[in-house]
Amino acid sequence: MRFHTRKWVKPEDLNANGTLFGGRLLEWIDEEAALYTIIQLENQKVVTKYMSEIDFKASAKQGDIVEIGMEVVKFGKASLVLSCEVRNKMTHETIITISSIVMVNLGPDGKAKPHGKTEVEYVADRLK
Amino acid sequence: MRFHTRKWVKPEDLNANGTLFGGRLLEWIDEEAALYTIIQLENQKVVTKYMSEIDFKASAKQGDIVEIGMEVVKFGKASLVLSCEVRNKMTHETIITISSIVMVNLGPDGKAKPHGKTEVEYVADRLK
Amino acid sequence: MRFHTRKWVKPEDLNANGTLFGGRLLEWIDEEAALYTIIQLENQKVVTKYMSEIDFKASAKQGDIVEIGMEVVKFGKASLVLSCEVRNKMTHETIITISSIVMVNLGPDGKAKPHGKTEVEYVADRLK
Amino acid sequence: MRFHTRKWVKPEDLNANGTLFGGRLLEWIDEEAALYTIIQLENQKVVTKYMSEIDFKASAKQGDIVEIGMEVVKFGKASLVLSCEVRNKMTHETIITISSIVMVNLGPDGKAKPHGKTEVEYVADRLK
Amino acid sequence: MRFHTRKWVKPEDLNANGTLFGGRLLEWIDEEAALYTIIQLENQKVVTKYMSEIDFKASAKQGDIVEIGMEVVKFGKASLVLSCEVRNKMTHETIITISSIVMVNLGPDGKAKPHGKTEVEYVADRLK
Amino acid sequence: MRFHTRKWVKPEDLNANGTLFGGRLLEWIDEEAALYTIIQLENQKVVTKYMSEIDFKASAKQGDIVEIGMEVVKFGKASLVLSCEVRNKMTHETIITISSIVMVNLGPDGKAKPHGKTEVEYVADRLK
Repeated sequence: MRFHTRKWVKPEDLNANGTLFGGRLLEWIDEEAALYTIIQLENQKVVTKYMSEIDFKASAKQGDIVEIGMEVVKFGKASLVLSCEVRNKMTHETIITISSIVMVNLGPDGKAKPHGKTEVEYVADRLK
Repeated sequence: MRFHTRKWVKPEDLNANGTLFGGRLLEWIDEEAALYTIIQLENQKVVTKYMSEIDFKASAKQGDIVEIGMEVVKFGKASLVLSCEVRNKMTHETIITISSIVMVNLGPDGKAKPHGKTEVEYVADRLK
Repeated sequence: MRFHTRKWVKPEDLNANGTLFGGRLLEWIDEEAALYTIIQLENQKVVTKYMSEIDFKASAKQGDIVEIGMEVVKFGKASLVLSCEVRNKMTHETIITISSIVMVNLGPDGKAKPHGKTEVEYVADRLK
Repeated sequence: MRFHTRKWVKPEDLNANGTLFGGRLLEWIDEEAALYTIIQLENQKVVTKYMSEIDFKASAKQGDIVEIGMEVVKFGKASLVLSCEVRNKMTHETIITISSIVMVNLGPDGKAKPHGKTEVEYVADRLK
Repeated sequence: MRFHTRKWVKPEDLNANGTLFGGRLLEWIDEEAALYTIIQLENQKVVTKYMSEIDFKASAKQGDIVEIGMEVVKFGKASLVLSCEVRNKMTHETIITISSIVMVNLGPDGKAKPHGKTEVEYVADRLK
Repeated sequence: MRFHTRKWVKPEDLNANGTLFGGRLLEWIDEEAALYTIIQLENQKVVTKYMSEIDFKASAKQGDIVEIGMEVVKFGKASLVLSCEVRNKMTHETIITISSIVMVNLGPDGKAKPHGKTEVEYVADRLK
């Protein structure tokens, strides 16, 4: 799994108990899943369709740094299935895992549309 | 299921495609689950431990009003299991459902602690 | 008065003294007034025109849960007059009251337009 | 009346109709009243106690610049009464006026406390 | 230099160390530079093109009030060069200075366009 | 240079012209510089002290994905000097570059403190 995006836990990210607000974490994951998919499918119109069960294994506190990892599980015809792990950057302790996030590729009409991709590509290769 | 909290979908809640950002919706659900639990367990120290699979059945657009419903599935010893539905207020169309959200009651030391509750209570009754 | 929307007071909602920021509370009330009006008038184009005097009776602190109540005072020809109360969910202590919020119904041209409504309707009834 | 703080109306400030969200405007006013009071009373612990009726005379749209003016109406014993006007910076058109905002000076115990001020002072003078 | 806009440092503006987040301060400066330019050039379409080196001389803490000053350095043909200082309102201590911020005037096509202005104008004069 | 954090440009990130708000970009860069420094110096207490000139080479629009790259320029005794580039993820077009960002390592007393580091370390190595 490749970990790209990192977040610094600031006061605006805390719940009323002073630990990382779970809703904020889910927001970060959903954004990362969307942009990871946009990069892979080379299409800006994608939506989150499904997330499998979410286990909050650990929390994080103000000042911690978390990093969000995504990995492709499967290329569907009009979808991309990802798995996700969020961990504490300093200790590598796992904060959350989601084994399956289904993202759907949309056409200009807003309906599911085949994307024609079958494997992970790196932008650097496309630009050659 | 009782629907309390309502949200007005504003530009700040949209994803880059101009529809309701899924991450924002998850943030709203997590906040509602937390405060619903705080009210039931009469304890401000609660955390989200688990969410079962999430199916995004429909989206919402700018100007729509969504309402978030919560229902108790089960009272555990130190936990409360909720189910959730988010729907469009005007049409009653379902946007998202989550059949099981496990919230954990914490003691002052931040560890799980029995809450002693076994059924839904209404604040109005407590104040009598 | 019916209380629907609930808010969990988080660090991002505090003023520099660590209590609930009054401006945030006013923002929540204005949003609730707008969406309550949209539901009643079945028109997404509404604006806040007037609020009567606002008395801040009590504050709230991090971790508190507040609920926002709205009630119809009067159906005008192109307007809807609401009254509002915000209270602490656990104690039912009143935080703020506003006896009159005037919302105006707009036509597609952005001008006031009669809405034809004369009484409170519930969405469930409309869907029958 | 002196106009200091200016705001640039950005997408995050719009309501679902695409005009300046009234709640955001009230949030800006409350912050300006608080900081104006802090400067005058030389005490960081102040709260908003009361706002007289609010008339939304005009709206603003994305890209507009609004400026917020405050003026002292009266120095109470433990309070400061302000009046407020928000206007469009380019046209000087009035957007909102509030004739009386009562701010209260608090002591370390969180209770109202006489502030000993009787007239507007400018920081430049204090620093001489 | 004229200081207009003032900000009250709230919990949402802090970094994970509990002092004013530098990124938030830069956000405030960029907004102020943009709106100052819009007012001077009477054109809503302007962009930040360049900032000279930024020296963070002091920080600010929760509850502090900062004010943002802007001054015209030079009128270019299609640009406006500003200098900026942010200071603590109560002590006049300097927090940050930027000696040169280049703002560019754009035409409807999004390209640089001469603005025809050569000196600072005050809106009050234009309205006479 | 290594590019980690990615951002999806959403409506809340736009200026009033509908392009990526420069202030938001600076906020993202400052956060990335801080967390990159925290990881390298293994100390959560760091501050931004200086940024060299900033050239806005290109903008970004809603739906674009930007990635933020950081590189160590020099290890000072109590400081870390970074360079930064932000680019469009899909095209690799450069949006902004900053050749020198000086971050300072602080002790518990809030004063500059030697950090004892002289080269880039990877967390994976530390955990072995």
